[in-house]
Amino acid sequence: MQDNVFKSLVGLWPGFPRNGVLFKDINPVLRNKEALNYITERLGEQLVPNQIDMVAAIESRGFIIGSLLAMKLNKGLILMRKAGKLPGPTVSEPYNIEYGSAVLEVQIDAIKAGQRILLADDLIATGGTAIAAANIIQRLGGVIVGFVFVIDIKNLGGTAELAKRGFKVNSLLEYD
Amino acid sequence: MQDNVFKSLVGLWPGFPRNGVLFKDINPVLRNKEALNYITERLGEQLVPNQIDMVAAIESRGFIIGSLLAMKLNKGLILMRKAGKLPGPTVSEPYNIEYGSAVLEVQIDAIKAGQRILLADDLIATGGTAIAAANIIQRLGGVIVGFVFVIDIKNLGGTAELAKRGFKVNSLLEYD
Repeated sequence: MQDNVFKSLVGLWPGFPRNGVLFKDINPVLRNKEALNYITERLGEQLVPNQIDMVAAIESRGFIIGSLLAMKLNKGLILMRKAGKLPGPTVSEPYNIEYGSAVLEVQIDAIKAGQRILLADDLIATGGTAIAAANIIQRLGGVIVGFVFVIDIKNLGGTAELAKRGFKVNSLLEYD
Repeated sequence: MQDNVFKSLVGLWPGFPRNGVLFKDINPVLRNKEALNYITERLGEQLVPNQIDMVAAIESRGFIIGSLLAMKLNKGLILMRKAGKLPGPTVSEPYNIEYGSAVLEVQIDAIKAGQRILLADDLIATGGTAIAAANIIQRLGGVIVGFVFVIDIKNLGGTAELAKRGFKVNSLLEYD
């Protein structure tokens, strides 16, 4: 699939979920099997499997991107969930997102000290969720290999924040 | 991976998310790369790719199972989401779940009449979510090929309800 065809699949919805936002809808992308392969191959080709121990996926569309890459790289999948959904001892971090605030949570035994973790989500905007995820992983002794996103809303500054912290970021589509 | 090893990975948490429930935790399963492959291979081997047009995944852990199978079968992925998360025109169905009630939603243009859809989720209990998903797909003219689950909480009757409606169901692990 060509890059411009891939990009043309993203739906654009002004005013969702509230006025002033131009929502980028990844649903038509995911429904296209060639585009699913494009995501897996294009994000996967920039990664070195033997430098990664686990893939961590951010709820909930990140679960899709994380699953594709875990399969592609032959790694296990760690779920980073919204608060209250995980049984047993957890570590959590509050964070601000484009449309409000939330808490991200991971099971304490999900990450062993020294494990090299690739973080996956569908989209980065302000980077609030990504930074909360990175904080949790580092608190548990994990080493962040990098981040992968399908969509980067560049002008909201998330990837710049991640770069400032020294994290490697790969994304497929950029928007202002 | 042997069946009994796979089953031993499921975490069991009495009293989560409330008293009287023995929660089956799929997180340790997903963190194991051999177990991820086991899910993909064992659920995939029971399916005929050329009898399926699309995989539909139920939010949010169903997104993982759906992604694994969409990759394996080389199909597109339809997201069946909790209410309010999808832009544009949607079809929705209310349903009761083990611990409360909710609404499931799909974009109207996600499913074309006659498309053969495989439904994927991590777990079936009472079947409330699965039946809501089936209703939505059928309202949009989709044809349900069958359901796949990792875990079936048999005594809660969900798979029996699906069978009563003539749906084919594959699951990997059964619990009373």
